Amino acid sequence: MYSFLNDYSEGAHPDVLQALSDTNMQQTVGYGMDEYCEKAKEVIRQRIHCPQADVHFLVGGTQTNMTFISYALRDYQAVIACDEGHINVHETGSVESSGHKVLTHPHIHGKVTKEMIQTLLNSHCDEHMVQPKMVYISQTTELGTYYTKKELEDLFQLTREKGLYLFLDGARLGSALVQKDAPSMSDIAKNTDAFYIGGTKMGALFGEALVIINDELKEDFRYQLKQKGAMLAKGRLLGVQFYALLKGKLYETIGEHENKMAQIIRDAFIKKGFSIYEPSTTNQIFVDLPIDIIKLIEKNYLVTHIKKIDANTERIRIVTSWATSQKEVENFAQMISSL
Amino acid sequence: MYSFLNDYSEGAHPDVLQALSDTNMQQTVGYGMDEYCEKAKEVIRQRIHCPQADVHFLVGGTQTNMTFISYALRDYQAVIACDEGHINVHETGSVESSGHKVLTHPHIHGKVTKEMIQTLLNSHCDEHMVQPKMVYISQTTELGTYYTKKELEDLFQLTREKGLYLFLDGARLGSALVQKDAPSMSDIAKNTDAFYIGGTKMGALFGEALVIINDELKEDFRYQLKQKGAMLAKGRLLGVQFYALLKGKLYETIGEHENKMAQIIRDAFIKKGFSIYEPSTTNQIFVDLPIDIIKLIEKNYLVTHIKKIDANTERIRIVTSWATSQKEVENFAQMISSL
Amino acid sequence: MYSFLNDYSEGAHPDVLQALSDTNMQQTVGYGMDEYCEKAKEVIRQRIHCPQADVHFLVGGTQTNMTFISYALRDYQAVIACDEGHINVHETGSVESSGHKVLTHPHIHGKVTKEMIQTLLNSHCDEHMVQPKMVYISQTTELGTYYTKKELEDLFQLTREKGLYLFLDGARLGSALVQKDAPSMSDIAKNTDAFYIGGTKMGALFGEALVIINDELKEDFRYQLKQKGAMLAKGRLLGVQFYALLKGKLYETIGEHENKMAQIIRDAFIKKGFSIYEPSTTNQIFVDLPIDIIKLIEKNYLVTHIKKIDANTERIRIVTSWATSQKEVENFAQMISSL
Amino acid sequence: MYSFLNDYSEGAHPDVLQALSDTNMQQTVGYGMDEYCEKAKEVIRQRIHCPQADVHFLVGGTQTNMTFISYALRDYQAVIACDEGHINVHETGSVESSGHKVLTHPHIHGKVTKEMIQTLLNSHCDEHMVQPKMVYISQTTELGTYYTKKELEDLFQLTREKGLYLFLDGARLGSALVQKDAPSMSDIAKNTDAFYIGGTKMGALFGEALVIINDELKEDFRYQLKQKGAMLAKGRLLGVQFYALLKGKLYETIGEHENKMAQIIRDAFIKKGFSIYEPSTTNQIFVDLPIDIIKLIEKNYLVTHIKKIDANTERIRIVTSWATSQKEVENFAQMISSL
Repeated sequence: MYSFLNDYSEGAHPDVLQALSDTNMQQTVGYGMDEYCEKAKEVIRQRIHCPQADVHFLVGGTQTNMTFISYALRDYQAVIACDEGHINVHETGSVESSGHKVLTHPHIHGKVTKEMIQTLLNSHCDEHMVQPKMVYISQTTELGTYYTKKELEDLFQLTREKGLYLFLDGARLGSALVQKDAPSMSDIAKNTDAFYIGGTKMGALFGEALVIINDELKEDFRYQLKQKGAMLAKGRLLGVQFYALLKGKLYETIGEHENKMAQIIRDAFIKKGFSIYEPSTTNQIFVDLPIDIIKLIEKNYLVTHIKKIDANTERIRIVTSWATSQKEVENFAQMISSL
Repeated sequence: MYSFLNDYSEGAHPDVLQALSDTNMQQTVGYGMDEYCEKAKEVIRQRIHCPQADVHFLVGGTQTNMTFISYALRDYQAVIACDEGHINVHETGSVESSGHKVLTHPHIHGKVTKEMIQTLLNSHCDEHMVQPKMVYISQTTELGTYYTKKELEDLFQLTREKGLYLFLDGARLGSALVQKDAPSMSDIAKNTDAFYIGGTKMGALFGEALVIINDELKEDFRYQLKQKGAMLAKGRLLGVQFYALLKGKLYETIGEHENKMAQIIRDAFIKKGFSIYEPSTTNQIFVDLPIDIIKLIEKNYLVTHIKKIDANTERIRIVTSWATSQKEVENFAQMISSL
Repeated sequence: MYSFLNDYSEGAHPDVLQALSDTNMQQTVGYGMDEYCEKAKEVIRQRIHCPQADVHFLVGGTQTNMTFISYALRDYQAVIACDEGHINVHETGSVESSGHKVLTHPHIHGKVTKEMIQTLLNSHCDEHMVQPKMVYISQTTELGTYYTKKELEDLFQLTREKGLYLFLDGARLGSALVQKDAPSMSDIAKNTDAFYIGGTKMGALFGEALVIINDELKEDFRYQLKQKGAMLAKGRLLGVQFYALLKGKLYETIGEHENKMAQIIRDAFIKKGFSIYEPSTTNQIFVDLPIDIIKLIEKNYLVTHIKKIDANTERIRIVTSWATSQKEVENFAQMISSL
Repeated sequence: MYSFLNDYSEGAHPDVLQALSDTNMQQTVGYGMDEYCEKAKEVIRQRIHCPQADVHFLVGGTQTNMTFISYALRDYQAVIACDEGHINVHETGSVESSGHKVLTHPHIHGKVTKEMIQTLLNSHCDEHMVQPKMVYISQTTELGTYYTKKELEDLFQLTREKGLYLFLDGARLGSALVQKDAPSMSDIAKNTDAFYIGGTKMGALFGEALVIINDELKEDFRYQLKQKGAMLAKGRLLGVQFYALLKGKLYETIGEHENKMAQIIRDAFIKKGFSIYEPSTTNQIFVDLPIDIIKLIEKNYLVTHIKKIDANTERIRIVTSWATSQKEVENFAQMISSL
């Protein structure tokens, strides 16, 4: 069985693992104050042309979202997300657990729009309701789509006007960075208050690099990190990994590979006339298939069942990653073609 | 200006105030351990034919909802409400502040249905999502409708089957109790795990009587009360008031009066062909009116603006109470008739 | 049996009750936005010579402490109190429930000192520990002592230097205000960031008036009030009561009466050579008595057992209030004298 | 410079790293549901002779403490620790952040005693105070001491009698396991409700294995894991590491090595007559030294400054680990001897 379940089925990209191995016996201070973290931070600051950005390395995505969102908001403030937002659905109420409401609106292609934000602002007008203060978006989205540079700029302009923070969850950022009209890492830094560069789903063993641009959101953040259990003792593991991913083009190379693998699969489905859900060009494919075809696929491949569409049809998800084998993908496409 | 803004514009019903006055100089122990609280609890237990029910007196509705819901749920559990539910919209995220997500579904006539619950249960299937554990409903609802006895029984049957708690917010319970097919207080006790009998909106200066039926939800609740700032030092004030309201028929008399007053106003609107929003027969009237008529009304009356319907129309809310003057209501109806 | 258990055994001072009665049938808007609250706020602002102070009325002390402290602190910040501080011992972990640690140090005469603060600051030096940000004190203290004007000024100077907030819990403020060298209400406003004027223990049915002086701690506080269940629907009840207490000298008269009553009792104990615990001159008396004398007292009076001192001795607490009858006090003193 | 700062200065023990490397390209399901986690759990269950124990793998110690303690306690319940307890001092209020008070008592040799527990139970008697429900201890303690088997049994007997949970933080468990009269892993399982086997400080890159014995504390724990950000996507990394540590004797070998290294250093200090603080026989050495000797040490070694003792003396901490070089230790001892 070959797994297309997700982009964290294997360990680390070999270059990342090698870097961990090479530095294993070195002594460093703990908690992310070491030279590897410093080097990784420096690389990130250079990439985004923002020398005064604060960078913190955390272990996982839910942890990063909860730790940062709870830090940024006052008790009575809420975060806006689309209904499919990871923080709304797949984090077991972690944001609420930290005391904050997630205000939602049905998504459009997995995305939050300016109109949604305005609608939620209009309906939250006094102290009997929570106060919207942050907009949470993901790049790529939960449905494999991405915000274009223009879309991100527009969102940021609105959030600026309205006194809201814009926070971008980049768990799968690499898959978006290599899209033509997508914002670069530097564009993202210019058009958010904070964002994170995903490691877990992009070839690291684990880790997310939180980048804070807005000065209002920097003070004493390490206290928050520690309190929320997000400060790794051997913090240098995160520095070593992110330095390996970001010092050259590895992060982008991974993005390109996973997108390319996904496209092969997607094309095979499209050719056969199957209905692709949402216009994804990234490493997630949602496709509605007859149940007997799914059964056939599942003889050799693990895929995720998303939703029953009708009596004979289900939506499945296929995910590619840095580790996805081109040979397996071609076999898979071949199998679809030959149906 | 006469106010139809809400059912808490005046102080207390004269009988309630008299009871407070009569007992003012007596000494009692604090924190609700006094004889007046005991008498009020006893009256409630008799009314619901449930001698083993636990009764606690709290000060306000938001406080009661938050204190009880946070007590009943484990960290990762969530409460289901309809989108218009008071806990979802009008409590500044108090439930989330205590760590719990409110799962919502668009209402039907202000109510939660079995289908909504089932839908939310279906989409919350594993530990990456919160675990639905309670259903929150209001009697009357935020839109002035109420659950019939049959509807409540059906909901309770489903929640029992699914291992959910059913909690009924009775901030305006009196207005529902006197409806023909509504559940009696005893029916409510038989068909919920807990509920509260509203005082603030039913003629008390303040106060809500939380009635816990399910034994699982009783242990050490007074600790929760104290921690959440909900234990009144002079707790006897609550006992005195609820005893005054519930020892005889005062609570029901108030419900009948406010409903009757509302009906006079509603009839006047209907006669004139104005569009009544939601089939309320209780003390809240939602009506869509041309803006110039609203302006006319507002020369003499305070009403709540709910929503813009179109360029010329707005939805307003009118609320009657124990204190609503029949003469003012008749004048108001007269004014509408003469438009 | 006559109760010396506490200062909230009766209802309201007759003048306060009369004011509630006089205004009972008037219509006002809800949630503390009414004219009575405005008048009470104005009286407070005049008394403290601080026209720009924010005043909010809450229902009880635990609620006020938790609502304000959680508002003022970031997630990782802590509040300093002495070990006997009400927030540390008698509020069922309400402050911790809102996410914040209470850092404590053994008290000196029920008080926090500059040295204690400095000690705690010294031992909290990095992000692996909470960050002390507020000092909480009570006037009068839990042991019946009070801070002199000089002591308060010294504390405030230190907290200013160290970037800490100083918050004063004035649940029994009246009993301190009438002491010769105690800070006046205006002195308190000059030497704290926020404080509250107690109502519950000073002749109101209930209610505490939170006064916020520091501009940093004002924004959107009403959201916090609502979220924590601390915004009373019929908010005018609080305005009416505080206006009655503070418009003239009633608040001070109450303080003088309860202190005078306490002194009569204290003198009787001292005369007999019993050991008074802590140099209280306010309405709380702590005295160590032989158990058979306590039994004798308890034939006619309710008192609070505080602590076993040795096999034959216990510490009890006696509290006087606005309602304490001089005749009962004299009988009590007589009984002690005649032992 | 050679670091004696802590036991997490290097990466992973080579055997652990090798295991990660060997399994790197394998595909597994995520979130700890893989075969490696299963194997590691099985090894743990066999070691403790408790086939029905629940085992969960988390990333770090603060996270493990907070996630489990907040799971085990109701809102108003508190955890007892000694004043030096890691949760009380070095976790930035993480337990309080989850809503719970940490009740403390001055330690005796870094430990909690039965008398301390009884004292805290005696002073927490009603709903105005938090309800003690759990006792938290560390093996080894923050001061390098450990509980003997007998001490643990006695504590567990008391907690059983009093209806308290006993939770043991085993961040440095290996250092204790190899002490003669210390409880074995199986003894610990018999005498606690839950405990964790530390990985981070015992040769893993990261990771702690939480072992839950008491059935009351098992249900739906994975929801809590996910909500608190403690569920690692590539969970198999934890399984692989703990299997490597625990399948044979590696964990104990590491414990023996670090203790032996520490003893060499300790002996050197003792021989010279320096004052060792607390009778540690594990991998932490606390020693009071003249400042000029510390300066001398710090020419070649990193050590932690704990506390100023007097004008000329400071307490420092030296920690050894699996990675500590015997040659460096001997050089260090030599240097001390030659003073």
